[in-house]
Amino acid sequence: MKFRRSSRLVDMTNYLLEHPQHLVSLSYFADRYDSAKSSISEDLTIIKQTFEQQGIGTLLTVAGAAGGVRFIPNIGEKEAREFIELLCGQIANPDRLLPGGYLYLTDILGNPKLVNQVGKLFASVYSNRKIDVVMTVATKGIPLAYAVASYLNVPVVIVRRDSKVTEGSTVSINYVSGSTKRIQTMVLAKRSLNEGSNVLIIDDFMKAGGTINGMISILEEFNANVAGIGVLVESEEIEERLVDEYISIVKLTNVDVKEKQINVNQGNYFKFLKSNEVFNIDDIDMEE
Amino acid sequence: MKFRRSSRLVDMTNYLLEHPQHLVSLSYFADRYDSAKSSISEDLTIIKQTFEQQGIGTLLTVAGAAGGVRFIPNIGEKEAREFIELLCGQIANPDRLLPGGYLYLTDILGNPKLVNQVGKLFASVYSNRKIDVVMTVATKGIPLAYAVASYLNVPVVIVRRDSKVTEGSTVSINYVSGSTKRIQTMVLAKRSLNEGSNVLIIDDFMKAGGTINGMISILEEFNANVAGIGVLVESEEIEERLVDEYISIVKLTNVDVKEKQINVNQGNYFKFLKSNEVFNIDDIDMEE
Repeated sequence: MKFRRSSRLVDMTNYLLEHPQHLVSLSYFADRYDSAKSSISEDLTIIKQTFEQQGIGTLLTVAGAAGGVRFIPNIGEKEAREFIELLCGQIANPDRLLPGGYLYLTDILGNPKLVNQVGKLFASVYSNRKIDVVMTVATKGIPLAYAVASYLNVPVVIVRRDSKVTEGSTVSINYVSGSTKRIQTMVLAKRSLNEGSNVLIIDDFMKAGGTINGMISILEEFNANVAGIGVLVESEEIEERLVDEYISIVKLTNVDVKEKQINVNQGNYFKFLKSNEVFNIDDIDMEE
Repeated sequence: MKFRRSSRLVDMTNYLLEHPQHLVSLSYFADRYDSAKSSISEDLTIIKQTFEQQGIGTLLTVAGAAGGVRFIPNIGEKEAREFIELLCGQIANPDRLLPGGYLYLTDILGNPKLVNQVGKLFASVYSNRKIDVVMTVATKGIPLAYAVASYLNVPVVIVRRDSKVTEGSTVSINYVSGSTKRIQTMVLAKRSLNEGSNVLIIDDFMKAGGTINGMISILEEFNANVAGIGVLVESEEIEERLVDEYISIVKLTNVDVKEKQINVNQGNYFKFLKSNEVFNIDDIDMEE
């Protein structure tokens, strides 16, 4: 069936958005729409311009016989700043304060639109690194991990605090919680991670970094590499952080339960968004 | 800034896909693109035709001053059949058999693309019912619940097996596991669910239905209503099911650990996809 340009643009936009990071050949689109490659090329130019102008992302064109086009989701700096500001405003609400200085974030983590947007923030930074899998620990980090992984087009593995019969054999480690100094356990199914994988660690909250350090230890057991660490909220009142390089979206300072006050600022995110190098197209694999 | 039709089509497609179930006024698009409403109307006609033809979903037009357009994600029957067949094939792999007749599904549940597609299957059935929130129980159902909720544009609440300090005060219930007959506990944060909410329950696996029954009991404590139940996999070898009306994507029969054999068939999904009534536009709220 022959498609008109207008229909092609609509369907190609949907297709590219649903297949982030895939390399799609021009022939695939030419066949799909029974159209000449030259027309497809023109369509892609229009889509690329619009994506870049509207802060949706970009299209990378790879020349040659094995070439094609690849959609890289990428949030614009302006959209990122607006979103993080909105998030800070929501988190600063003193009603979130719970006994012990904990913060109620369940509503924010329960909102798929916010969660997807956070996923796009992280994916925009990590799309130019080699990531094979996103890892998190049950349960609060799970939705964030899926949102990031969706944009990066990689699977998710979930570390647990206990082992389950439905996971098969597992590897477990002990680690020291950074803030309470207690010994805890983490478990990962043996089947779920390949040796040598490049792993992006994602979590919702980081205090001293004990949990993330635990995930790093478990990666060592699998001979896997830490390709990056991203947390939604970091808490600043920590003397000694166990983790060095990480990206945070939001930073808490001065959580005062008595005075019912929370100070919320943007995290170190923009340090990384700015230094985003040009994407390296040398190691692109053909997928379509 | 003025947009040409081609750029409008690309950006509107992205906007609609990112805002499922929202009612967007024509004025919003007219302002966004500095274009006449008549042009926007023509754009929407093209998008609607392409979405329907390609199994992406449909656009509902609501006439009048408070009117606009609403994107309803809706998988085509053909795409749904192909996808479920593929899923059955993957699940039937005898390597998935674990001791005790359990099935390893972690890789499938760890694949965001598969998970999103399952979310679209459920959303296609439930988009014409009044759903305020999607509920699941930690941990395996979480990614599915977010995928469904994303397409339905509603929040997710997660029931836990234990209470956490970061959730504030909670309501807990005891329930009887259907297959092992053991007493178990479920906990939900008080703040996370409003009275009278219409709740879609989503889970990855259902044997006798004890866990889902537990979620139904906890909804009673919140005076909330069960608006639907969806499970990815149901196991058929159950004499007495505790749950009546549910939708399953895949059904297991004849799991034989000794012979290393699993029979996997499609679940009852198509009974519900076919009976999908025309969407009721009477109770649409204006959001944009």
